[in-house]
Amino acid sequence: MATSAVRGSILSFTKDPFFNAPEDSHTFIEDGLIITQDGHIKSVGPYTPQAAEGLTVDHYKDAIICPGFIDSHIHYPQSQMIGAYGEQLLEWLNTYTFVAEQDFASRKHAGKVAKIFLQELLRCGTTTAAVYCTVHVESVEAFFEHSSALNTRMIAGKVLMDRNAPAPLLDTAERGYEESRALIEQWHGRGRQLYAVTPRFAPTSTPEQLDAAARLWHEHPGTYLQTHLSENLGELAWVKELFPDCDRYLDVYKKFNLVGPRSIYGHCIHIDEPDFADFNRLNATMGHCPTSNFFLGSGCFKLFEAKKAARPVKVALGTDVGGGTSFSILETLNEAYKAAQMNQTRLNAFQGFYLATRGGAEALDLGDKIGSIEPGYEADFIVLDLKATPMMEFRMDYAKTLAEKLFVFMTIGDDRSVRATYVAGRKMEF
Amino acid sequence: MATSAVRGSILSFTKDPFFNAPEDSHTFIEDGLIITQDGHIKSVGPYTPQAAEGLTVDHYKDAIICPGFIDSHIHYPQSQMIGAYGEQLLEWLNTYTFVAEQDFASRKHAGKVAKIFLQELLRCGTTTAAVYCTVHVESVEAFFEHSSALNTRMIAGKVLMDRNAPAPLLDTAERGYEESRALIEQWHGRGRQLYAVTPRFAPTSTPEQLDAAARLWHEHPGTYLQTHLSENLGELAWVKELFPDCDRYLDVYKKFNLVGPRSIYGHCIHIDEPDFADFNRLNATMGHCPTSNFFLGSGCFKLFEAKKAARPVKVALGTDVGGGTSFSILETLNEAYKAAQMNQTRLNAFQGFYLATRGGAEALDLGDKIGSIEPGYEADFIVLDLKATPMMEFRMDYAKTLAEKLFVFMTIGDDRSVRATYVAGRKMEF
Repeated sequence: MATSAVRGSILSFTKDPFFNAPEDSHTFIEDGLIITQDGHIKSVGPYTPQAAEGLTVDHYKDAIICPGFIDSHIHYPQSQMIGAYGEQLLEWLNTYTFVAEQDFASRKHAGKVAKIFLQELLRCGTTTAAVYCTVHVESVEAFFEHSSALNTRMIAGKVLMDRNAPAPLLDTAERGYEESRALIEQWHGRGRQLYAVTPRFAPTSTPEQLDAAARLWHEHPGTYLQTHLSENLGELAWVKELFPDCDRYLDVYKKFNLVGPRSIYGHCIHIDEPDFADFNRLNATMGHCPTSNFFLGSGCFKLFEAKKAARPVKVALGTDVGGGTSFSILETLNEAYKAAQMNQTRLNAFQGFYLATRGGAEALDLGDKIGSIEPGYEADFIVLDLKATPMMEFRMDYAKTLAEKLFVFMTIGDDRSVRATYVAGRKMEF
Repeated sequence: MATSAVRGSILSFTKDPFFNAPEDSHTFIEDGLIITQDGHIKSVGPYTPQAAEGLTVDHYKDAIICPGFIDSHIHYPQSQMIGAYGEQLLEWLNTYTFVAEQDFASRKHAGKVAKIFLQELLRCGTTTAAVYCTVHVESVEAFFEHSSALNTRMIAGKVLMDRNAPAPLLDTAERGYEESRALIEQWHGRGRQLYAVTPRFAPTSTPEQLDAAARLWHEHPGTYLQTHLSENLGELAWVKELFPDCDRYLDVYKKFNLVGPRSIYGHCIHIDEPDFADFNRLNATMGHCPTSNFFLGSGCFKLFEAKKAARPVKVALGTDVGGGTSFSILETLNEAYKAAQMNQTRLNAFQGFYLATRGGAEALDLGDKIGSIEPGYEADFIVLDLKATPMMEFRMDYAKTLAEKLFVFMTIGDDRSVRATYVAGRKMEF
């Protein structure tokens, strides 16, 4: 039984602060102690010498411990092209993405990038992510192998594309089905790994492949479905051309039975009340990727329309690297705040940290396993450093309340803010 | 005669890449040598052992040397409140800014913050900035003293406000005039220090004070005028109420003779062709502050309308700390790119780096002194590190051209990208 103990200020959420007062939605223990055992949290409470007796304690001063961050939308093969110049979505895919992804036919390249990618996530405090691989089986195997070795809880899947992409990146409805099925059998539920059926988006899959994707997903309960929705106006027009019988973009995915619990839709920019209502009714999740939405000029996600109390939609944050410009969920919160401001709404720090932790976990149907620091939960948590940089240290001196401190992390924090990352109770090296 | 030598890849601009092809607008020496003498650049050219003979050479590998960055709009007293939650412009001023600024009646506090502020600018590679102090003479003295000690070329001035702010932050038209005049006499042109007459914005100055500001500026040729214009719709409505005889916001400043060469207008979001035409005709400068404009939900600056070849407007970048969220001009370029994308335009890396260096210098009427690495120029330059972070090193491996490398700096660079900052030929400590 591997037991360890971590001491410091501990933040965790109990309710959704979009619908509850901040003070009712979180717990904060000024001087707390987390005891973990076999990868899970055994106890959490105020620190006392008695509680820590006999244990080696990692004591973090000038820090806030919170659950590991959750990223609902990221492309690991795009790490090498983060920050690629000049295009909006469709040209950007052709000019950069579909070039970079061809490298992942090589298992060696995939392994190299998977390792660097996971390391970068941990440096940024992200302990769970929903990850797009490429069309190559090799890319998925390499990813899950590295994630298994780290024991991180990751969701990932092979991209399905059988049209409108370069030949080396295409499979067929049948091959995509068979390869995905084999990967699901090999990886889904093995240790902490989870599989996501991953049709890239409607324009790159034929109706046959969307149909095969739905079968894959429904034949394997517990797996995820991840894809893109309504990111860019050019994309919308193209979808309309390809699926003329569907009024709205979402209708395509609905028609193929791809919308439901554990389906994660990245972006959701150009949508409106009927779509929000469908997401609510069908219990699907939106991945909010603000750094990408600004970078590709897509628009500002209507977060506060999604989080309407009368028909709430599940929302998680996504970095969307390489369309996004940072692996850091803190930097993503900076731009989530800005996107909200551009919509004349305000994302407060409790709401932001909730989205990054428990809210993300619930949106990924993992709210009973990760995203909270509570007994029984998997022991994924991070240590945020109040003095990470000279400016952070200076600024924090003027932040009096917890809300202010968290907001400073949201605004000027980055990977350096993360002093330590624990995965299943183990402190990671980075 | 203090002589020093720096070796590495050297980038400098010769023309404006908004109006000229990239390859015609910059010089790039793969292995170059800069020799400085008495604070100025004595020579620049390809490195040869002969050229470096007898000199101690700082040799920077895996790096690009470029002119120091130029920030046209920043509030040093707001350093302590960077990232303050939740408001748009007018409430934000009342809730945070006007509270923080009252601390600067204390010379000791002003000195402490000026020191940290200048240190942070240098860490971020900014060697020249146009800086707002507070209404207090002490805040200006503290700032110029620290800047003088560092020998940085800075533009700064006492804020003028005689209405619509808390009493401790108000002066009068006459007192503001007298105090500013004394500060100009003491500091303008002393070493590298330059003075900017600084009415905060139209709503916080009476017509009498705007009139006094114009007199100050015109009576002291070579000084600057800095203020804010059209940042926020609430501000626009308020200006209309306060100056009912002025059709457009800019008309207020025009009426008081405050628009001309060496006037710097921060933000300029909600403006249109007549304003652009006035800026062009009157040779005034716009300060483009994208991180602030997103953070306060103000909007996206129309950069490519400003930079229209037929009637070009001078534009410089500004961080606008503390409405802005970063001291880093690289992070500011990240969001300048995003603001351009949101306007369906594309800011390329050469344009970005031009704005950050020579373009900024020209917009501040300092194009013959700073912003370029050329013989005779003041020796302010920085060393950008191609391997500053694990992700930067990985990403740069996939950036083949100079344009790509610069764009990666624009997108994922930050203070860590700056390996060294030279001010007047001297390598700064930070």
